[in-house]
Order: sequence, then C-alpha cells, then structure tokens
Amino acid sequence: MKWCRFRAGRKVRYGIVEEDRVVEVSGSPFESCTVTSTSYPLSEVKLLVPVTPPTFYAAGINYPEHITWAAQRVGTQPNIPKKADVGYRAVNALIAHEENIIIPRDSSGEFQYEGELVAVIGKKAKHLSKEEALSCVLGYTIGNDVSERSWQRQDRTLWRAKNSDTFKPMGPWIATDLDPTNLETTIRLSGKVVSQFNTGTMIFNTATYISEITKYITLYPGDVLWMGTEGATQNMKPGDVIEIEISGIGTLRNYVVGEE
Amino acid sequence: MKWCRFRAGRKVRYGIVEEDRVVEVSGSPFESCTVTSTSYPLSEVKLLVPVTPPTFYAAGINYPEHITWAAQRVGTQPNIPKKADVGYRAVNALIAHEENIIIPRDSSGEFQYEGELVAVIGKKAKHLSKEEALSCVLGYTIGNDVSERSWQRQDRTLWRAKNSDTFKPMGPWIATDLDPTNLETTIRLSGKVVSQFNTGTMIFNTATYISEITKYITLYPGDVLWMGTEGATQNMKPGDVIEIEISGIGTLRNYVVGEE
Repeated sequence: MKWCRFRAGRKVRYGIVEEDRVVEVSGSPFESCTVTSTSYPLSEVKLLVPVTPPTFYAAGINYPEHITWAAQRVGTQPNIPKKADVGYRAVNALIAHEENIIIPRDSSGEFQYEGELVAVIGKKAKHLSKEEALSCVLGYTIGNDVSERSWQRQDRTLWRAKNSDTFKPMGPWIATDLDPTNLETTIRLSGKVVSQFNTGTMIFNTATYISEITKYITLYPGDVLWMGTEGATQNMKPGDVIEIEISGIGTLRNYVVGEE
Repeated sequence: MKWCRFRAGRKVRYGIVEEDRVVEVSGSPFESCTVTSTSYPLSEVKLLVPVTPPTFYAAGINYPEHITWAAQRVGTQPNIPKKADVGYRAVNALIAHEENIIIPRDSSGEFQYEGELVAVIGKKAKHLSKEEALSCVLGYTIGNDVSERSWQRQDRTLWRAKNSDTFKPMGPWIATDLDPTNLETTIRLSGKVVSQFNTGTMIFNTATYISEITKYITLYPGDVLWMGTEGATQNMKPGDVIEIEISGIGTLRNYVVGEE
C-alpha cells in the first residue's frame, strides 16, 4: 500500500495511491483513518512531504564505499563507525517530490545529492529488540540528503551544509510491506544513472538503528529515520533534474535551481 | 507578559500568568488568540512544555569559561568558535517544569545540568540583519541541556548524550519584553548555588545567531534556540532537585530520579 499526503484544491489530506488515482482517506495512517469514496487522478493532485516529523533522525555515514570515498576526498583514513550513533536533520529543509532544490547564492558549487531509504515510524516505541524493531515502522519513503561539501568541511556542525532551506527532499509517498534490507537504489542526474546500490550493504540496518535508538529514546508516530547513502556523489548545477528511485517505493524527483 | 501552556482537567490551553493566576486564552501566542474570562490558580494547573518546536536549535558551546572547563576535562586546548554554527536537539527529550529527569540505567554517573536561556521564535523569518533579528522572537524561556558526559566523549554524535528521553527540561513559561544580553542566570543543585552568570558573556548573542541562521534557514513560529551555558557543571544524582533561574523569566525546577 502507498500512503501519500496531498493537496486537492484547498484541502490537505492523506490518500492511498492506487495506480494512477489517489483515494482520499479521512484521518491519517498515524492514527485511525477511514477510506472515503472520493478519489482524484494522481496527475491532478499536488503531492506534499508525506509527513512532518516530530524528530528527524539520520544515520549519516552508513555505507562502506561512501565512507571510503569521503575520506579520500579530504585525505584521511576511512573511519567505519563501530556503533549505530544517529544524528539529526531539520524540518525547515523538507520539500516534496517535484519541488525545487535551491542552491544558495554563496555555495562553492560542491552541491551534491545523497539518495537514501527513509523509515517512517508509525507507532510509539521504546526498548525494542532488533527482532521486533521493524514492528514500529509504518513504511518507507525516499530522501535526498542534499549536502554542500565545502560547508560540511568548514563548519562545526552540519547546520547549513545539510539543513539549509530545500536541502531535504522527501517523498513521493510511504510504501508499506517492504523488506528494507533488500531494496535497489538508482540515482539519475539529468537522466544519467550516477549511482546504483542495494540497501543490503548498509553497515547498520534499519532494525539495528531502531533497536539502538529505542534503548534511550522514545520514537513517535511520524518520526523519520534516514538511512544514509552509498558510494561517490557528484555536483548538481542549476537546470539539473535529480531522481532517486528505490524498488518497491517509486521515484523522488526534484529540480535544481540557483538562488535569485 | 508570561505565556504558559497548561492542562486544566482535560483541556490543554495557552494562558497568561498574572501573579498567582493563569488567564486562559483561546488560540496561541503563535497565531491569533483572544483572552477569555476563565482563570485558574497557578498552583492548580499542570504546566506543560511551553511549545513543541518544529525545529529545535542549540548553540552548543557559546560561553568562554564553559569551553575552557570542558577542554581541561579532556586534556585539550580550548577551541573558541569563530562562527555562530548552530546544532540541534530532539523533541522526544523535552519535559516540563516540575517533571522528573531520569538517569538511564547504564549512565556512568557523569550526568550533568546545563542552564540555558532559550529564545522562542514567534514569526516566520528569513534574511534578518543582526539589528532586526530579535523582531522574530516571541519571548524567552529556560532550558536545562542535560548531558551524559561519558557518552558525549564516546559517541560520534550527541544523540544519547544530550537527547535521551527527559534530558531536555524546558519552561516554566515564555516571558516577553526582555533584553537577552543582560539576564542573570542562577543554577541551584538541591538548594545550593552551583553557578551564576550573565547572558551578556555569550560569545555570539541571540541576535547574531538568528541573523546567521536566517541567511540559509527559515525560522518558523514555535522554533526554539537554546543559547548555551557558562562555566563548570556538576553531577546530579537520584534525589537531587535542579533549578535554573533566569532574571525576568522565573525558575525551571526538575527532580532527578534513577531509571527503574
């Protein structure tokens, strides 16, 4: 099942995507909801960010080849994490499928995509074992952890490098009933495939992260956990189209523009 | 004026604190609201976290003596930040005035308070100069940036060191019409004054942080910005009462208990 959040006219609603139509529901998948008899052509609704998370978690570095690549770029030894220490991203930066990613005026040009699997929490959860961890997940969506690499090197934190406005495309919807350890990710920059990897090569998988987090932290419905990206990434420039496709979910597509 | 959020019976409302009473308002200070004719004795309402922030910003290290003290503890040179790079904290960790701070079972015992001024954003803001920065602030409250120092040293991020459940007391209310550059902070641990400092000794003041953040990031109503703490901090143990008082605001009081 695919849950989307959409605007039709003035209404903002959750819906279920069924082929080329969206069936409106009342309520949301995070609480009780009922299917209505109203539906819309998918092409005529505006898809929104599928959820505004109470807390926005990000695994950060979580794939071996991305770590090796990042270390080579700055001339250090690759530092493979030994524990599933989670980080944070910021709600201000979220944009939806088909919206514009804006390159800030003073970016160095090292402005890059990172295609990521995103777990969306559906139920309040604490102290989950690794075996039961995925029971709190509603489903999975796609994130693009856009990064300004020069700021990532210069600043004490990742605040503007990864959280400037429009730097966190997420969508197009939340797909349920997937195995997060075996999904194919394909990244296309202006139509050209620039990266392909399977989520099975994560260093710490989704269940491990959730189990570790919930030793200390309560997860709440709507929280999201971005799972990191693999391999090298490339610069995006104004005019580019960046697409992240993950098997079983769909494609998150955004347009790159320069700040005016 | 002092804005609080409270529960009376089953109702959750915003109110205005006037001496020992709370006058209920309909709406919230972040949108339009009107004063009602209902009021309650302050002692009979349950104060709640004054706002659940969309994004939870924290200056982190922002006072000179705290940086010197922290560097001495780990045997490094003090590294005074040259730029106002902001960090993040997490909503799951927020608790209200008078609630319990829980020491996780596997804490090393290096479990410490950090008393901080908190700016609460009242209006959407981007590209504010330093001179106009405070125009987006609704008012100020108090935060206790509880920190587990051994995890702070060990982990790749601050996730559990600063964001475990109950680690972020905030309140008791939001006070307006204050000058954030000249407020006296007094921290009492089980009745004994352990720290006193003026917010004027911040390295980067509230206006500077807001101006820097809004170069890249839109601030939204309800966002909070925790401004850091000064000086050395001490361990808290089960049974302790920790109070942070800031002149013009009031006192944030919480009780320290061990995890069962």
